[in-house]
Amino acid sequence: MRFKLFTLLLTIIPFIGLAQQDDSLKIRAIANEILLRSQAYENLRVLTKKVGARLTGSPQTYKAEAWGQNALQKAGADRVIAQSCLVPHWVRGGKDEAWIVGSKNQPLDILALGNSMGTGPKGIQAPVVLINSFEELEQKKAEVKGKIVFYNYKFNDTYVRTFEAYRDAVGYRGAGPSAAARHGAVGVLIRSMSHAADNNPHTGSTRYNDSFPKIPAAAMGLQDADKLAAALEKAPVTLFLKTNGKMLPDTVAHNIIGEITGSEYPDEIITVGGHLDSWDPAEGAHDDGSGCVQSIEILRALKAIGYKPKRTIRVVLFANEENGLRGGGRYAEEARLKKEKHIFALESDAGGFTPRGFGFTMPAELLKKVKSWLPLLQPYGISELEMGGGGSDIGPLNRELGTPLAGLEPDSQRYFDIHHARSDVFEAVNKRELELGAVSMAALIYLVDKYGL
Amino acid sequence: MRFKLFTLLLTIIPFIGLAQQDDSLKIRAIANEILLRSQAYENLRVLTKKVGARLTGSPQTYKAEAWGQNALQKAGADRVIAQSCLVPHWVRGGKDEAWIVGSKNQPLDILALGNSMGTGPKGIQAPVVLINSFEELEQKKAEVKGKIVFYNYKFNDTYVRTFEAYRDAVGYRGAGPSAAARHGAVGVLIRSMSHAADNNPHTGSTRYNDSFPKIPAAAMGLQDADKLAAALEKAPVTLFLKTNGKMLPDTVAHNIIGEITGSEYPDEIITVGGHLDSWDPAEGAHDDGSGCVQSIEILRALKAIGYKPKRTIRVVLFANEENGLRGGGRYAEEARLKKEKHIFALESDAGGFTPRGFGFTMPAELLKKVKSWLPLLQPYGISELEMGGGGSDIGPLNRELGTPLAGLEPDSQRYFDIHHARSDVFEAVNKRELELGAVSMAALIYLVDKYGL
Repeated sequence: MRFKLFTLLLTIIPFIGLAQQDDSLKIRAIANEILLRSQAYENLRVLTKKVGARLTGSPQTYKAEAWGQNALQKAGADRVIAQSCLVPHWVRGGKDEAWIVGSKNQPLDILALGNSMGTGPKGIQAPVVLINSFEELEQKKAEVKGKIVFYNYKFNDTYVRTFEAYRDAVGYRGAGPSAAARHGAVGVLIRSMSHAADNNPHTGSTRYNDSFPKIPAAAMGLQDADKLAAALEKAPVTLFLKTNGKMLPDTVAHNIIGEITGSEYPDEIITVGGHLDSWDPAEGAHDDGSGCVQSIEILRALKAIGYKPKRTIRVVLFANEENGLRGGGRYAEEARLKKEKHIFALESDAGGFTPRGFGFTMPAELLKKVKSWLPLLQPYGISELEMGGGGSDIGPLNRELGTPLAGLEPDSQRYFDIHHARSDVFEAVNKRELELGAVSMAALIYLVDKYGL
Repeated sequence: MRFKLFTLLLTIIPFIGLAQQDDSLKIRAIANEILLRSQAYENLRVLTKKVGARLTGSPQTYKAEAWGQNALQKAGADRVIAQSCLVPHWVRGGKDEAWIVGSKNQPLDILALGNSMGTGPKGIQAPVVLINSFEELEQKKAEVKGKIVFYNYKFNDTYVRTFEAYRDAVGYRGAGPSAAARHGAVGVLIRSMSHAADNNPHTGSTRYNDSFPKIPAAAMGLQDADKLAAALEKAPVTLFLKTNGKMLPDTVAHNIIGEITGSEYPDEIITVGGHLDSWDPAEGAHDDGSGCVQSIEILRALKAIGYKPKRTIRVVLFANEENGLRGGGRYAEEARLKKEKHIFALESDAGGFTPRGFGFTMPAELLKKVKSWLPLLQPYGISELEMGGGGSDIGPLNRELGTPLAGLEPDSQRYFDIHHARSDVFEAVNKRELELGAVSMAALIYLVDKYGL
C-alpha cells in the first residue's frame, strides 16, 4: 500500500507541479498583456466622455450599443451580435426641484428616483414629517397623511464591507415611497445611501406597489438631509417639491454579445459581463462602464496572447440593469429556449476598484475546486474566494439554468461615494485598479475554461 | 492520556474562546469609535490645508510641530513632548526651469531633486544623452562628458505591488546624478518613478557621492519624458536647465511625541507613528500626513473607549524622513541612551489607502504569534501578515535595539500616481480608507499591548 501510494505520488506530483507552473506562466502572460497594453481605460474614456450617461431608452442607449459592438470587434471577437429585448422607458422629464418654504426659500439638491412619477408641472407643497425607520413609520402612521415623508435612515458606517450598509439601507429607496403612500403621504424624500463627504444626491430605482398611489419620490445628499433634519428639530417645515418623471411605453434595447468560439467544447458557454446602461445624471464610469470595459479587455487579452479557449467565451454587455433587469432576464430566457449549456457566468458590477476577491453562487464542492486555484490568483491581489455573490444580470442564468455564478469583489470603500450620483465619472476611475480587476477576472475565466466546473 | 488531554482541552478551549471573544468585542468597539467619530480626516484637512507643505527646516516645519502637539493633546495624550534633533536644511531656492532649445523653445515641467545643488543663476545649456539603464551608462560613458544625462528608466507596471516597481527604479534618482558626474556629465534629468496618467514631476532625495562633482538633477513627468525621448529619436537635442537648490547649515527640528503611560508595564514601550515632514511642492497628504493622523487617531480612540493600555503607547510624528532620516535616528539614539525597552514599533508611511496587511521585521516565532491574531484582523480587511516591512523612521530602533517592527501595507495602486508630486493633496485621500487604516493599526497595537511580543 505504501509503495503504491508512493508510486502514485511520483506520477501525480510532477504533473500537478507542471500544470500549476504552466497556469502560473499563462496567467502571468495575460496579466502582462493587460498591465502593459490594456485598452480598458481608453475604452472607458470613450464610453463615458463620448457616449456619456445612457439610461435605458435614451438616445445614448443606442450609441452605447454601437460603441460596444465596435469595441468587441476591435478586441477580436469571432462574432458580435445584438440580442434585442423589451425594456421599460423611464424619463426624468426635466429639472428636479425642492426647497424649504420660508420668507427666504432654501433650495435642496435633489434627484427624482428612477421609475418614479412626477409631481405634475406645478409641483406640490406640503408639510414634512421626518421618519427614521419603517418601525417609526408604523408608529407615526397617523401623522403622515397629506405630508411629504422624509426618510432619514443613515448609512451604517460600522459595516466594513460597504455593500452591507447598502443592503441595510436600500429598502427605503425601493419600498419607501409605497410604504408612505399607504398611509396617505403625498411625496417622499430619502437620505441618499452613501457616506460621501459631498452633497450629491444618489438616485436609483424605486418599486411602486400597485395597491397604493404612485407618489413622487426623490433623493437628497447628506448635507441637505442633515440641514432638513436640523430645520425640523427647530420648527415645522413645509417643502416644495417638483419632479417630472414618467414612464413611456416599453421600447427595445439590446444585450451586446461578443464571443470567442471554443476549440474543444464550443457548446459549453462561459459568460462574462457588466451592464451597459447607467443612471442619467452621471457618466456611469464605475457603474458599470468599468465592468463592460473589463469584460471586453479579457477577450482582447486572450486573443492578443494567442490563447485559444476550449470553451466558448462570451462577453455580454447587458441592457437595462438599473431600472428593469430586462437584459439579464432576456439572456437567460434565450439560453433556456435554445437549450444552451452555460457552465459559468461572471459579472463585474461593483466598481473598477482594486480587486480583493470573488463571491460565488455554486454548490460547495465546486467552490472547493475554485478555492484550489487561490495560489494562482493571490499574486494579483485576490485573497477572498467566498460563498455568496454573482451579479444582477447573471442571476437569472442561475435561477433558470442552475449556472454557477461569480461576482468580482473589488475594494468597496469608495463605491458609495459615487454610486448613482453625478460624481460617477471617468476621473473617479484609476487606470491600474481598473486593469487589475480585468487581470483577476481573466485569470478566473482562463482557469474555468481550462479545467471546467 | 486520552482523559488528560480531554480535561486539558475542556480547561483551555473555553478560555481561548472567551479571550478571543473579548478581543473581538474590544476591537469592534475601537473600530466603531474610529468609523463613526474619527478625527483623522479633519486633522488631515488642517495639516494639509492650513499648514501645507512642510519640508525639513521650512517655516511650516514648526507650524506642523505645533499642530502635532495640539492634536496629540486634544486626542488625550498623558504627556506630549518635542524631542529636538539636528536636521539638514535643503531649500529649492526658486523656480525650476528647463526647455528643449530650438527656434521655439519647448518647456519641460521639472522639479529639482531634494538635496541637489542648483545650476547657478544663469542655468546651464548642454546636449542631452538618453540613458535607459546603468548598464547603458557604462557602455556609453565616453559620450557623457559635458552633457546632460537623461535617465529614462521605466516604472515596471508588471509588478502588481507597486513598491516593487519603485524599489526597482529609485536607484536612478538616488545614485544616478553621481554615476553620471563620474563620467563628466554636467546635469541629470530623470523620468519620474510613477505610472501617473498626468505630467507631474515626482521629486525625492538624491544622494551625492562626495568623490564626484555635485551636478544639478531634476525629475520630469512621464509625458515630458516621452516627449524628450521622441525628440532625441529624431535629432540631437540641447537642453537648458536651471535649478536653484542649496544646502543651508543644519538646523533643529523635533520629533513630536505623545503617549499614554502603561498601567502595568509602563517601561515597555510600543511606538506607532508616521513622519511629519513632506516634500515642498505638495501638501503631503498621503506622504505622510495620513500616517500622522492615523497614529494620533489610535491614541484618541483608545482613550475615547476608556481602554487603559498595560504598556506605554507612544505616538511619534517623526522629523525629517524625506531628506535625512534624522528624526528616526535621533529617536532610536535617545532610546539607547536611556536604556528604554521598546517592545514593538509600527509605522504607516505607504499612503492612507484601504489597508490590506502588515509587513513585519521580527523573528519567525514572533511572526507566528502575530499570525495567530489574523482572525481578529480579517473582519477589517487585513489578509496579509508577512515577513518583510517596517518603516524608514522606525528602522533604527530595530537596528540599534532589536525592536520588532511592522509597517501598514495599504493598497498600493494609486500611491505612485501622487508620491512626491504636486498631486499629493488632501482631495486625493478618501475618508473611509484613511479611517480603516487607523482601525487595523489600532487593532494590532491593542493586541500587542494585551499579549506582549
